[in-house]
Amino acid sequence: MVLHISSKSILGKVFFEGDVIVLGKSIIDDGCFIGNNCIIGFPVRRSLRDLISRGCVDFSVYDDLSEGVLIGSNCLIRSDSIIYERVRIGNDLETGHRVLIRENTVIGANVRIGTNTVIDGSVRIGDNVNIQSSVYIPPRCIVEDDVFIGPRACLTNDRYPPSRRLEGVVVKRGAVIGANATLISGVTIGEGAVVGAGAVVVRDVPSGMVVVGVPARIICSREEYDEKKLSWEQVE
Amino acid sequence: MVLHISSKSILGKVFFEGDVIVLGKSIIDDGCFIGNNCIIGFPVRRSLRDLISRGCVDFSVYDDLSEGVLIGSNCLIRSDSIIYERVRIGNDLETGHRVLIRENTVIGANVRIGTNTVIDGSVRIGDNVNIQSSVYIPPRCIVEDDVFIGPRACLTNDRYPPSRRLEGVVVKRGAVIGANATLISGVTIGEGAVVGAGAVVVRDVPSGMVVVGVPARIICSREEYDEKKLSWEQVE
Amino acid sequence: MVLHISSKSILGKVFFEGDVIVLGKSIIDDGCFIGNNCIIGFPVRRSLRDLISRGCVDFSVYDDLSEGVLIGSNCLIRSDSIIYERVRIGNDLETGHRVLIRENTVIGANVRIGTNTVIDGSVRIGDNVNIQSSVYIPPRCIVEDDVFIGPRACLTNDRYPPSRRLEGVVVKRGAVIGANATLISGVTIGEGAVVGAGAVVVRDVPSGMVVVGVPARIICSREEYDEKKLSWEQVE
Repeated sequence: MVLHISSKSILGKVFFEGDVIVLGKSIIDDGCFIGNNCIIGFPVRRSLRDLISRGCVDFSVYDDLSEGVLIGSNCLIRSDSIIYERVRIGNDLETGHRVLIRENTVIGANVRIGTNTVIDGSVRIGDNVNIQSSVYIPPRCIVEDDVFIGPRACLTNDRYPPSRRLEGVVVKRGAVIGANATLISGVTIGEGAVVGAGAVVVRDVPSGMVVVGVPARIICSREEYDEKKLSWEQVE
Repeated sequence: MVLHISSKSILGKVFFEGDVIVLGKSIIDDGCFIGNNCIIGFPVRRSLRDLISRGCVDFSVYDDLSEGVLIGSNCLIRSDSIIYERVRIGNDLETGHRVLIRENTVIGANVRIGTNTVIDGSVRIGDNVNIQSSVYIPPRCIVEDDVFIGPRACLTNDRYPPSRRLEGVVVKRGAVIGANATLISGVTIGEGAVVGAGAVVVRDVPSGMVVVGVPARIICSREEYDEKKLSWEQVE
Repeated sequence: MVLHISSKSILGKVFFEGDVIVLGKSIIDDGCFIGNNCIIGFPVRRSLRDLISRGCVDFSVYDDLSEGVLIGSNCLIRSDSIIYERVRIGNDLETGHRVLIRENTVIGANVRIGTNTVIDGSVRIGDNVNIQSSVYIPPRCIVEDDVFIGPRACLTNDRYPPSRRLEGVVVKRGAVIGANATLISGVTIGEGAVVGAGAVVVRDVPSGMVVVGVPARIICSREEYDEKKLSWEQVE
């Protein structure tokens, strides 16, 4: 087991599964589990470029430079995940394998993030959010509390790519995003709204509405959806 | 080269490419190749949670606990792949890199699974199945013999997410699923049916039919598809 | 730090972040950065199969066999990426983490490739190409200069899967492919054309045209798109 744990880091009772790298002034609370081959506090692009140009690249140099990560208690971060510096994570996060969380991202309490999901930096995620496998969330997106994002959903931040104005997607409290849905830059998914699997959302979805298709159109209310869901669940 | 090979495991003539971890009562037959950084027999969530709560996390502890994996002969599993405990795999599997196969999955003989594909546990896969790169298959899905699944296809198991009734997709013998298609929870893709690339399948597809679009609609029969395919192949 | 650097390789001033494997007659120019756990010059399938059948599998054996990789100056290849043998890369490539580039691929100068992207071999990519995260590009695709490919876009090469005639997609100079778009085997995306996010392109897109939807249809010209883009950018 090879551990590179920064001498500047402050660790509670933390469990390391195997080779783990913790960089900079990272603070990791009690009960956390960090999987094999995880890197915590990886330097942002600018820092890395600067180090390369100065000809010194090494985890010990990164360590001097990294501003570290804040991770709350009882987080379970599975193997091969990479968390960049300046990320703040609440209690009880659970991730799959190979998750990437880039810099300046803030994640609330009790969040799940599935295998291969990429959170590409400068994203805000609330409490009790469930993000399934292989989801992509680019910078400037906001995901509020109690949101569910199905596998392979793709949020975007560039309405006229490649543009110098980037604008994320806002997913309001309690909304549900179906598998492999695509949300276009700048749209807001209203509170409790539902986006069907495979939908392409090109304009705002009003609160409490359900949309499906390409482009996504309203087909019913969340209330009707919840009724159908209830009958569906009772059949079992 | 660091090998953590369980003393409880039973290995035929197996080739390890680099650092490999084999846990529990795993049985791996002759002629298998296990790539660098692969983990075979990873513990299920419940076990992992339990170990963390007891404060003991380590591959040697996992080893005591893991129920292992059964892998047939001549399997080629490329680097960075993770196979959970209680998985059974037939002969001649070939995977790309970074494949994840979670617990209680049963895979037949002569199957291919592409790079980054996630088989998220409790999935049944038949013989001679070809699964391309970055496919997602959630629990309770069944993929019968001779099925072809194109890159980035997304199967689902939650019709009204997030629901407590999960129902997978059934892909019947000889069916073809196009690239980046989305199959909604509960649908059956009939024997020999074809789902076009990018389609969103919301209801059952009859045997021998070809569907495309969002929502997917029948456009022709498999027979006509095979005729077009034949002319297409002859042009070359 | 474990380095397996082939004695046959020719390296300029190259920076290795951690454990790195460089195989065969690889040539890597000055100023390159190779991330932790990267493998450069991985053997093609045929070679690997042959080695397994002869019962000798090991990075030192790979090294004898690998034809190596050519990498220009100042390339930044982030951790866990794998580049197969017979790949040629120009100057100033920058990749995210876990990128896979398979054999016989040629990449021009000043290209970016995002995290988790798979370039599945025998692909030609021009100069100044920007490929975002989790993109899939299969064999026989051609991506010309100045192209932008949004996150999760999926190119294909099999019009009637599974077929023995594979034909890639051609993306002409200056074209833009939106997030999670699917491009069907054999189509050409014309010079400067734009494919909207989530579109499924089933026929050629003329130069300078913008298409959206499933199947993708022309909605306006690139000129109009650029005007809208300009107003959008000025609002900020």
